[in-house]
Amino acid sequence: MKRARNFSAGPAILPESVLEKVQSEMLSYRDSGMSVMEMSHRSSLFEEIISDAEQLLRELMNIPEGYKVLFLQGGASLQFSMIPMNLGKGGKVGYINSGSWAKKAISEAKILKVPNMEVLASSEEDNFTYIPEIPETDEAYDYIHITTNNTIEGTAFQTIPRFVNAPIVADMSSNILSNRYDVNDFGLIYAGAQKNIGPAGLTIVIVKEDLIQTENKLPSMLDYRTHIKNDSLYNTPPSFSIYVAKLVFEWLKDLGGVEAMVKMNEEKAGLLYRTIEESDLFSSPVAVNSRSLTNIPFVTGNKDLDAKFVKEATSLGFLNLKGHRSVGGMRASIYNAFPYEGVKELTEFMKAFEAKEGKFK
Amino acid sequence: MKRARNFSAGPAILPESVLEKVQSEMLSYRDSGMSVMEMSHRSSLFEEIISDAEQLLRELMNIPEGYKVLFLQGGASLQFSMIPMNLGKGGKVGYINSGSWAKKAISEAKILKVPNMEVLASSEEDNFTYIPEIPETDEAYDYIHITTNNTIEGTAFQTIPRFVNAPIVADMSSNILSNRYDVNDFGLIYAGAQKNIGPAGLTIVIVKEDLIQTENKLPSMLDYRTHIKNDSLYNTPPSFSIYVAKLVFEWLKDLGGVEAMVKMNEEKAGLLYRTIEESDLFSSPVAVNSRSLTNIPFVTGNKDLDAKFVKEATSLGFLNLKGHRSVGGMRASIYNAFPYEGVKELTEFMKAFEAKEGKFK
Ligand SMILES: Cc1ncc(COP(=O)(O)O)c(C=O)c1O
Ligand SMILES: Cc1ncc(COP(=O)(O)O)c(C=O)c1O
Ligand SMILES: [Mg+2]
Ligand SMILES: [Mg+2]
Ligand SMILES: [Mg+2]
Ligand SMILES: [Mg+2]
Repeated sequence: MKRARNFSAGPAILPESVLEKVQSEMLSYRDSGMSVMEMSHRSSLFEEIISDAEQLLRELMNIPEGYKVLFLQGGASLQFSMIPMNLGKGGKVGYINSGSWAKKAISEAKILKVPNMEVLASSEEDNFTYIPEIPETDEAYDYIHITTNNTIEGTAFQTIPRFVNAPIVADMSSNILSNRYDVNDFGLIYAGAQKNIGPAGLTIVIVKEDLIQTENKLPSMLDYRTHIKNDSLYNTPPSFSIYVAKLVFEWLKDLGGVEAMVKMNEEKAGLLYRTIEESDLFSSPVAVNSRSLTNIPFVTGNKDLDAKFVKEATSLGFLNLKGHRSVGGMRASIYNAFPYEGVKELTEFMKAFEAKEGKFK
Repeated sequence: MKRARNFSAGPAILPESVLEKVQSEMLSYRDSGMSVMEMSHRSSLFEEIISDAEQLLRELMNIPEGYKVLFLQGGASLQFSMIPMNLGKGGKVGYINSGSWAKKAISEAKILKVPNMEVLASSEEDNFTYIPEIPETDEAYDYIHITTNNTIEGTAFQTIPRFVNAPIVADMSSNILSNRYDVNDFGLIYAGAQKNIGPAGLTIVIVKEDLIQTENKLPSMLDYRTHIKNDSLYNTPPSFSIYVAKLVFEWLKDLGGVEAMVKMNEEKAGLLYRTIEESDLFSSPVAVNSRSLTNIPFVTGNKDLDAKFVKEATSLGFLNLKGHRSVGGMRASIYNAFPYEGVKELTEFMKAFEAKEGKFK
């Protein structure tokens, strides 16, 4: 069974050993005679899975006490609304407009008519090709929202801004567990699972409990307090996705945790960025000081040649290299589970393609 | 690999052939070199899966034009809030309080301060042991909400009420595709997938498009119009669960569709109800004219004996027979995928247990 070189931005490649484990347990998890898909979420077998998953994530990210870990549904997109509902206390809220997803977060806050919303910095006028400079402030904000890694544009915050009176809320969908972060720098971290963690349909929220508003009664499913009180088992959770996430966390831990992963990701991304830099055909649209470790766009500057590259790459088994429709060109998403070997093969193909086609640029 | 007799109320047993298919495609779906878990939801491979899933469901339920089929996240519990948000137009709304889940739907509508809400009928005073009589009305309601099958209490509507000026909204979580229904009798049908359809984390909504309100701007993820406009691909859907659902729909169609399933379910439930009726030890707490085909509670009338029954059953591989904590006793959930043979074995065990323990009642 030949596995693809799958550069998808999400849902994305998962560790082969995890898929093999899932496969082997499909009809009977630990001799239970049931698939995890078939297990009551109130069973002791499943309760062990979800509590192991939480414990492993706490270990991997070094999550301090006072922070709750929630396993939710709805994707990162539902968090765009749940965050203002749960953390907004009528004070100011700030947003950094660093990419297409940040912009969606902003527009959802607007739909909720969040009072006192400010966009504190933006790189939209330059097509989000860099992380904008964030002004210092000691004013109080209920929260300031950032997108640590901008999946579509391939930019990432290199340092997390700190404010005295404003907790940082971070959409970490596309680089959770891929970059080194100190959870203490954040009031809330959220991420859709479908890039670095597991199947789509699971959303991780890590929230400092004392930031949550207690004034407004919210729909139960949209209220973090509901899920905190019920250990993410208020209603039926996306149990199978949580099980796969647990296996991914185990895989990650076995490989040496986030530290080891960052090293590998730096090697993978380093190789690809070097190839792009050294090439006369390919270039990066992203400012050098803003580059992502996980999502790496590149272009030839010629749309037809881009299309030709993607087509030939696809026929060779390098899948999903087409850039997002809003950006064009190519994008290689190389999350934790993407092997170094695959990046190496891609760079070799890029060189071969350049030797053959570079002159037609 | 011995498979359990899994009577779980949800997540629940799935067809063995579906699990085997999922297993065989785990590392490479149709020679793609990718698991469905790893596939971009914008890929043609996945688009085929979701559109096949919709097509199959439309066929199985005979869903008329004018009704949209949505694949959402958040469980049936999130629909308790999305329904009043999306169908409430400021007119009256009615609820039938027929069980614990119906009651939750009511309490979520209250949280939203839905104006003009009326509970039109209730059997709560009698522990929800029957479906309450529903008063006729020709007054206008934005909708009237019913729970076709009350999972916890084991009751089901035997006929769907019809009103001239009030579309019926139905929580069909625990008997969608298990009972015979005419979609035309409903304005909206919703169901969590984890009983009759697939893994938890997927919610099906079938909605008559012209009932949706257009006055209020809602958070995008909570707005049916968002998902209609984007064919359930506004954000990353629970793609793997949709894939499993598709396989379950195929399995169901191969077996002869809902008609065939109803016949099998009547045989399974008939056998169990007969056994309960004929027994001096076991009895059903549910009124004869309100009984569910899919969730069948029974009791000995003696808590210790109930516990003993559940314990011995468990040791013999009859799993998850313990009744819901709010009701006690036993409950056998026998959804579409639960085999007749398993019900037969259970009834034989019940008889053996009665022969041995009946005298201690
Ligand atoms: C940074 C970021 N935020 C949010 C989203 C939206 O996530 P979801 O599809 O889970 O709603 C994505 C999806 O790719 C993303 O990359
Ligand atoms: C009839 C009914 N409605 C709603 C629910 C809640 O569903 P979920 O857990 O998907 O939110 C259930 C769950 O068992 C149910 O049986
Ligand atoms: Mg972006
Ligand atoms: Mg270059
Ligand atoms: Mg109920
Ligand atoms: Mg009896």
